[in-house]
Amino acid sequence: MYPEPINRLVSELGKLPGIGQRTAQRLAFHILRSEDGDAAALSDAIREVRERVGLCEVCFNLSEGPRCQKRQDSRRDASMICVLEQPADVIPIERTHEYRGLYHVLGGALSPIDGVDPDDLKIAELVDRAEAESVSEVVLATNPTTTGEATAHHVAELLRGQVSITRLASGLPVGADLEHADEVTLGRAFSGRRAVA
Amino acid sequence: MYPEPINRLVSELGKLPGIGQRTAQRLAFHILRSEDGDAAALSDAIREVRERVGLCEVCFNLSEGPRCQKRQDSRRDASMICVLEQPADVIPIERTHEYRGLYHVLGGALSPIDGVDPDDLKIAELVDRAEAESVSEVVLATNPTTTGEATAHHVAELLRGQVSITRLASGLPVGADLEHADEVTLGRAFSGRRAVA
Repeated sequence: MYPEPINRLVSELGKLPGIGQRTAQRLAFHILRSEDGDAAALSDAIREVRERVGLCEVCFNLSEGPRCQKRQDSRRDASMICVLEQPADVIPIERTHEYRGLYHVLGGALSPIDGVDPDDLKIAELVDRAEAESVSEVVLATNPTTTGEATAHHVAELLRGQVSITRLASGLPVGADLEHADEVTLGRAFSGRRAVA
Repeated sequence: MYPEPINRLVSELGKLPGIGQRTAQRLAFHILRSEDGDAAALSDAIREVRERVGLCEVCFNLSEGPRCQKRQDSRRDASMICVLEQPADVIPIERTHEYRGLYHVLGGALSPIDGVDPDDLKIAELVDRAEAESVSEVVLATNPTTTGEATAHHVAELLRGQVSITRLASGLPVGADLEHADEVTLGRAFSGRRAVA
């Protein structure tokens, strides 16, 4: 019943997580009525984020260039690598101000049921980094979930004897999501991290 | 802490109604990780809706061309005009299948406090239409709110004697509970009571 471009926008907005049909309609009408620059800015921002943001070829964190800024920051402690499941997990850890080392993003967690094997994650790349760079500690900060624990265990096995390996302290409620943890809890978890092997 | 294009996307998404900082972040990461075509399709849909959808120059409903499709649809009853505040109000009325006439969208409601005067709405255009076209009935379907009622009253005064003027019935919503009805609605239901037999 709407002109076709509105139907298309409602349909595209409806593909976003947590955006139902009604919300998509409300957003579409907002976009239609918004200030001239706003819709163009949103459209451009969506396009640019896809065009300009990729993964750092060393740590697989989000990056505007082939290598992310953190790796070029000399104030960061290059002897530590914090291992994460997702790029989004970097931010809550940075917010704690407890960690000044580098990162390694695996791109997920091991989950045989979902068909995620070690080859699907950046695990071999982590082992290479730990060998090539002068790394003294690897902090396993995968989620405290079944798949995150399994991933941490697998990585710990591979790195055993090579570097010291630590795991974020329990303190995060089991079953929780690192991305949504509050900074105090997460800070405690960091300062209380314990040796795994 | 994110690469700049992500911050910009989060900021633009956060301008949408009902989208807070956390939701904007979640949506931005979804867009980053989504299938290649999806982000481009959303970006294009936002741009196109602004480029291709305007207002019909006669009824001020949303339209892809200078004149909306409803006006060209010979099955619609051109002797009736339903007067609305917003283009979004067309859809719920179409869903009822009770109305097959044309529409006239005012673009808002009279509200002196907010500086919305008759000149800011498409009221003069409605009066012209009622004169020029062979209109026999104007249905005032502005919202049953203070400003919507004031607008309906104002429009009715201007059209008095020219065409027959009706207003959507106000009363208890179907399925509602008398016990929990507000007194204004219930008062309307009383004063608008109709003979049953």
